[in-house]
Amino acid sequence: VTQLTLTALRGIPLVQPGDDLAHLLLAALDANGAVLQQGDALVITSKIVSKAEGRIVRLNSVTPSAAAVELAERTGKDPRIVELVLQESVRVSRAAPNVLVVEHRLGFVSANAGIDQSNLEDGDERVLLLPLNPDESARLIRQRLYEATGVEVGVIISDSHGRPFRRGNINVAIGVAGMPAVIDLRGQPDLFRRTLRVSIQGYADMVASAAGLLTGEAAEGLPVVHLRGLIYPPTDGRASEINRLAEQDLYR
Amino acid sequence: VTQLTLTALRGIPLVQPGDDLAHLLLAALDANGAVLQQGDALVITSKIVSKAEGRIVRLNSVTPSAAAVELAERTGKDPRIVELVLQESVRVSRAAPNVLVVEHRLGFVSANAGIDQSNLEDGDERVLLLPLNPDESARLIRQRLYEATGVEVGVIISDSHGRPFRRGNINVAIGVAGMPAVIDLRGQPDLFRRTLRVSIQGYADMVASAAGLLTGEAAEGLPVVHLRGLIYPPTDGRASEINRLAEQDLYR
Repeated sequence: VTQLTLTALRGIPLVQPGDDLAHLLLAALDANGAVLQQGDALVITSKIVSKAEGRIVRLNSVTPSAAAVELAERTGKDPRIVELVLQESVRVSRAAPNVLVVEHRLGFVSANAGIDQSNLEDGDERVLLLPLNPDESARLIRQRLYEATGVEVGVIISDSHGRPFRRGNINVAIGVAGMPAVIDLRGQPDLFRRTLRVSIQGYADMVASAAGLLTGEAAEGLPVVHLRGLIYPPTDGRASEINRLAEQDLYR
Repeated sequence: VTQLTLTALRGIPLVQPGDDLAHLLLAALDANGAVLQQGDALVITSKIVSKAEGRIVRLNSVTPSAAAVELAERTGKDPRIVELVLQESVRVSRAAPNVLVVEHRLGFVSANAGIDQSNLEDGDERVLLLPLNPDESARLIRQRLYEATGVEVGVIISDSHGRPFRRGNINVAIGVAGMPAVIDLRGQPDLFRRTLRVSIQGYADMVASAAGLLTGEAAEGLPVVHLRGLIYPPTDGRASEINRLAEQDLYR
């Protein structure tokens, strides 16, 4: 097959803490007339996973540490948000006016530890942290979908990351289940039967980016994309595999 | 519309220097029963653009400079390839065993200046440089398609890049015409009518990554993907806009 179809599911309600995401997904698939097939994938934005998991923090409950206050001054950010960023991270990578890039406790490097101030109902006084363990969230959703349908699908939880060198955020995978996170093509023959040298493919990240073309970041509110036609090896990957180890990273 | 369909075009022949790519694309679209529509996009791997443009270098025609010889020792690479990398770049970003990351003359940062040793018919003694000006290549292909069909499509020329922090190459746009390279969402309201803060979207890179799910890097030989269902503002972007300026880059 050389065709891939992506469909943004309509009609997913605003997610509330405690909501059963797998149940909402199944209802939305049904309402969209989509029947899951073996090998399909679902890309779910981390925002609704965080909401369902209740990862909401009231800013007026946060007391900034001295380190957070200092870093807030350097970056021009709210010290309470900087405090949460520090709590969610293991190391500051870069701090500058309007920039705070950290190594997240989950192992990736991202701005503001992925803390999100947009699309929360009651305004600036609440923020959303990333899911506690998005690989595990993806695994549980996949398991629930399997129990309900008997079909094994790939599940990706996506977030939007900036990056060095290139302008513009792109969607990447921060949780993966039932599909590869990266695909190692090294050793495969090329068209002329020579061996490919440098070819680990950032597969789950590319799937997340494809889905990001439909979800966008603005007002559309389409947090789930269904994909049909992906062809991937039967690997049960984890997003944690995507993180390059600090000692193998020339830019950290 | 909330559906996106990607189709890898079958039957594109091995491209030779001097080939008319637009002509090959039109023939392949025809053979695949695809009729271009306004707003469609085509993602073309840089490899076939380079081949058509004759960007092939015989390694035995290359004399390494002293700097290339020194860098070849540090990286363990062929001094003739390092010489070409230096010729194609303006600055070395990182050099280590098996690693040579440079700032390309086109403005992006990538490994080995995008020089490609795979999928060339007569083996290791020839390599392929990136197109001279991929934005212009994209513009010319788009213009030829318009002249032949009367339809305006977006065209992206893609390459595969490694990146800091994350394992796995992903496809990015190194040439863009007739569609946005980045989309600035700043100032757009979110679901609750607050203004989005940090939202420049790496649109063309995400389109390139979506297409990369079909082309892969290995033996499939599917260098062109047709996309239908993208919704983008009527911007005639350039891949050069994606390059973050060195002075705004905290990681270079």
